[in-house]
Amino acid sequence: MNRETFRVTFQPDGRNVFILEGTNLVEAAGQAGIVLNQPCGGQGTCGKCRVQVTEGAPRPSPSARNLLAGEEIEEGIRLACQISVDRDMKVWVPDESRFFEQVILTEGAGHGYTFDPPLHKRCVNVSAPTVEDQRSYVDRLKDALTDDSGTVDLEMDLPLIRCIPSLAGDGDYTATAVLKDGRIHWVEEGDTTDKVAGVAIDIGTTTVVAAMVDLVSGRNEAVASRTNPQVSLGDDVVSRIKYANEHPEGLEKLRKRLITCVNELIEELLARSGFEQRDVYEVVIVGNATMNHIFLGLDPASLGRAPYVSVLRGAVDLSASEVDLALKPYASVHTLPNIAAFVGADTVAVALASGMHRSEDINLAIDIGTNGEVVVGNKDRLIACSCAAGPAFEGARIRHGMRAAEGAISKVVINAENIEVSVIGGGRASGICGSGLIDAVAELLRVGIITPQGRIESSDDAPQAVADAVTEIDGEPAVILVDEHQSKTGEPVVLTQKDVRELQLGKAAIRAGAEVACQHYGIEINEVSKILLAGGLGNFIRRSNALRMGLLPDIPADRIECIGNAAFAGARMALVCSSCRQEAEKISLETEYKELARSAEFQRGFAEYMTFPRSERGEESAG
Amino acid sequence: MNRETFRVTFQPDGRNVFILEGTNLVEAAGQAGIVLNQPCGGQGTCGKCRVQVTEGAPRPSPSARNLLAGEEIEEGIRLACQISVDRDMKVWVPDESRFFEQVILTEGAGHGYTFDPPLHKRCVNVSAPTVEDQRSYVDRLKDALTDDSGTVDLEMDLPLIRCIPSLAGDGDYTATAVLKDGRIHWVEEGDTTDKVAGVAIDIGTTTVVAAMVDLVSGRNEAVASRTNPQVSLGDDVVSRIKYANEHPEGLEKLRKRLITCVNELIEELLARSGFEQRDVYEVVIVGNATMNHIFLGLDPASLGRAPYVSVLRGAVDLSASEVDLALKPYASVHTLPNIAAFVGADTVAVALASGMHRSEDINLAIDIGTNGEVVVGNKDRLIACSCAAGPAFEGARIRHGMRAAEGAISKVVINAENIEVSVIGGGRASGICGSGLIDAVAELLRVGIITPQGRIESSDDAPQAVADAVTEIDGEPAVILVDEHQSKTGEPVVLTQKDVRELQLGKAAIRAGAEVACQHYGIEINEVSKILLAGGLGNFIRRSNALRMGLLPDIPADRIECIGNAAFAGARMALVCSSCRQEAEKISLETEYKELARSAEFQRGFAEYMTFPRSERGEESAG
Repeated sequence: MNRETFRVTFQPDGRNVFILEGTNLVEAAGQAGIVLNQPCGGQGTCGKCRVQVTEGAPRPSPSARNLLAGEEIEEGIRLACQISVDRDMKVWVPDESRFFEQVILTEGAGHGYTFDPPLHKRCVNVSAPTVEDQRSYVDRLKDALTDDSGTVDLEMDLPLIRCIPSLAGDGDYTATAVLKDGRIHWVEEGDTTDKVAGVAIDIGTTTVVAAMVDLVSGRNEAVASRTNPQVSLGDDVVSRIKYANEHPEGLEKLRKRLITCVNELIEELLARSGFEQRDVYEVVIVGNATMNHIFLGLDPASLGRAPYVSVLRGAVDLSASEVDLALKPYASVHTLPNIAAFVGADTVAVALASGMHRSEDINLAIDIGTNGEVVVGNKDRLIACSCAAGPAFEGARIRHGMRAAEGAISKVVINAENIEVSVIGGGRASGICGSGLIDAVAELLRVGIITPQGRIESSDDAPQAVADAVTEIDGEPAVILVDEHQSKTGEPVVLTQKDVRELQLGKAAIRAGAEVACQHYGIEINEVSKILLAGGLGNFIRRSNALRMGLLPDIPADRIECIGNAAFAGARMALVCSSCRQEAEKISLETEYKELARSAEFQRGFAEYMTFPRSERGEESAG
Repeated sequence: MNRETFRVTFQPDGRNVFILEGTNLVEAAGQAGIVLNQPCGGQGTCGKCRVQVTEGAPRPSPSARNLLAGEEIEEGIRLACQISVDRDMKVWVPDESRFFEQVILTEGAGHGYTFDPPLHKRCVNVSAPTVEDQRSYVDRLKDALTDDSGTVDLEMDLPLIRCIPSLAGDGDYTATAVLKDGRIHWVEEGDTTDKVAGVAIDIGTTTVVAAMVDLVSGRNEAVASRTNPQVSLGDDVVSRIKYANEHPEGLEKLRKRLITCVNELIEELLARSGFEQRDVYEVVIVGNATMNHIFLGLDPASLGRAPYVSVLRGAVDLSASEVDLALKPYASVHTLPNIAAFVGADTVAVALASGMHRSEDINLAIDIGTNGEVVVGNKDRLIACSCAAGPAFEGARIRHGMRAAEGAISKVVINAENIEVSVIGGGRASGICGSGLIDAVAELLRVGIITPQGRIESSDDAPQAVADAVTEIDGEPAVILVDEHQSKTGEPVVLTQKDVRELQLGKAAIRAGAEVACQHYGIEINEVSKILLAGGLGNFIRRSNALRMGLLPDIPADRIECIGNAAFAGARMALVCSSCRQEAEKISLETEYKELARSAEFQRGFAEYMTFPRSERGEESAG
């Protein structure tokens, strides 16, 4: 008998998730792309994950009663980590409870960043020339912009200068200037100071995620994601580089596909956010080094052959038109810097967003994607390495795999009788995404349907319905997760033997990479203060299952922090905070890169971690 | 009987002029576009105009004997101001005797500027990447460029980054970078440090002059000039502005004509200098405000209607491709700043080149062109005004007027028997340029063929042959300067009554403007330390004739300095000297503009100075 599914709505984001009964509210928020603070690891002792449940508030937990005032409890304030969802809810999440927003918005204590976008608007009244005041049109505007701020030496480019006479007309006028880096970047008629938008984009090998951010309020106004359309030309970075090398105009074809995808995302974000194309002045791009190179139209050949060198490490500033983005020519694009040929701007962004580069404690960040990256260290030293995890974690190379979008199984729980699934959007399942895949394998491991070697086989220990779900497809064993009557497609959604192998390869690569990085740093992996588990939107990996699979070493669950799509969060930070760009450059320059391709330890570790751990560890199955 | 014509060759410039016997060598150099120092006003007392006469050295003058050592005299060193040319000569002009070169090349004493172009090249060896050194291609190059100079934070634009992989190839390589404003502006294969060229361009209403300058040596490698092809759409700035306003695409038509002309000049300079298109990295443009606006594609409408305001006052930096110059996209263009709607970058350049903005003494600079500009003042205060002189001084609106090019009469002397002319290039005359026109009118005034009111009439005082040259054309009196047998065209070259009127209008406007500027400054015009007489290439106006015409007030000749095309010299200074650009901005910002359009004093002065002075003044006729 399946458990009920409930709808939780998060405000002010306006995002809905449909989750299984008993799901922790922190995890539900993660499914909605909202990462809550959890410095105590979900013990209910720090009070940093407080939210306001405006509809369907459960009884306050003992921890909440301890930490919250009576009026707060009456207003529906609760500790998210103490709530197991057992009804539909509406939840308001304040900025101070959000992991990344808190990083940006909190000042002081040497930890936070100030909200300080790299551009700002200023509205001024400019007087018409007279015979007594013959200053040029451009000087009148510059002087008006200078008067009240002391800014001097404002420069303008020719295309903008050419627009000034028609803007100025013959009389006094009101104009809004976009100021950036001591230059007048653009000028508009009237007062448009309330319209300043930016786009943060994380270009993954498999998934591209983008947010429209209001650069006045700092809020995400819309988030959207798509499959990177390059996947049909190669499903990992090595095959993309190969495609670029071996096909005529290969790089340009890859680049165009990517740009088309990014432009579609921007169009969707504009439609959903209420901003218009002309309101977008700034774009920040993160991605692995291969995506970074392809986005910029840089030949990725040297990334794919020894000695594995990127054309470009550093950040680049350019205009949107230089890379054919469907934005106004005055929109700027900033690409965050890379670290090495296989450790890109996305890893820089993970470090930036996690704050590990400013911490005294030594943390280990693992970014799970088609290319898995690992960073270990603290403010004094960071070491990064890259491990080709394959696209399984993003639902690719998996028989019924799909991106974490509507219809994807995002969670799998095996109870005493049955396989329960949670589907994104709350409807019927049409496939399975990365987090669902990890759940499925971890749960099937737990009940013995998957052996430590990764074989799918019948098990007497499993509930009968689960044992009955084992079947055979194309001569290989498989498990039916959702049968043809319950699925959206009319076909069963299955997990095949090959799917399990793909996941084994991926988790072995990541685990071995993490071990080698720590060895190289001179620390045992289970000595790190925290393991920060990052991954794409919707890939909110449950700690218990990551432990059960052996993706993570045997450390207490409260030292594992799921920080969601940290690369994307880092892109957003660089969009709203100028000094974050300088920190990113520092991370890029100072992080040591450990090459795994020639590492014997990595090869040994990879072989070792292909098998799943024998001893069953971690938390209860529902998390 | 005509005097002989001699050929004087100036080195290292390699320029020839053909001049009348008895012409002063300083004037001959001026005809060749070389302005010699003459702080003593040609008295032979300062020794600053020393040159080496390598062929045809005359006997040393008493002044030369006083000021020069015996060995110097033996080597042919002479004082140019003391030489009347009486044979063919070859003359080497050292930098220290050149007015503008000396300004640039002399350091110290708070006067000179250092030769310091805004860009420089650096050649480096860049090592191939290895597994031990996986720095990106771009970082390897940046690091190589940083090592030996301490330069940091070098940025590169995307189009250049895209070129780096093919430049780097697979091995070590040698590259030359063009560094500018803390950026890597361009990178080339191999060592090209000896190839750095720039172009200085003075866009006049009637004449466009350009020089190709070697930015390693600082030398002019070639100079060329053309008629501004906009003249057929209007022969002064007011008619050009009108054309832009009243014709569809008028501005773009004007702009395209100008750009075509500039591109032809660049092509000619490349052919003559031995540089190639790829060697040109920098262009400096000066011109009056209307030319500046049209060059930049800025609507000049506001320049032409009250309250007479420019779109742009300041300097602009742009790429050559933005304004369609036939140069590589990496070539930069710098336009010097304007002062006001009718006092443009050319006037800023005149002040800059003359050094009047750094002087304790109060000087008066008069730039004679289609638009005449006047600047008076010193380091503490400068006042500028503009007077529409009309194009007569550049040979336009004159029956047989032409640009100062081959075939133009550039000098006219009336001796006891005859009218003698000097023709640019030494061949037969086909017309008359501005300096020839001034000479002709001044000389005819002297012999009474032109009356103080400007009427051409027979005179008993004139030599018979000159009196016989008075004729009638289209019912108006005229003077035949070169008859049909001596001319290149088979038609006589004449000066008409209307030509005299045009010159009267022009000189009256300039003189009145100069008077009003001085009044406004609070100084009598004849109290200024020096009058600096500037004008287009070849318009080397003789002081005696400028005085005789009443273009200049009655001051001693040694306080009049002919500084040639100072606007062009200023453009060249801004090309080879970064700090000159800052000084130009300072001049642009701080010079006060006195509007003449509404000035009653100007109207009174204009009427008064229409007539020529009655009393004959100045030097001997041959100069």
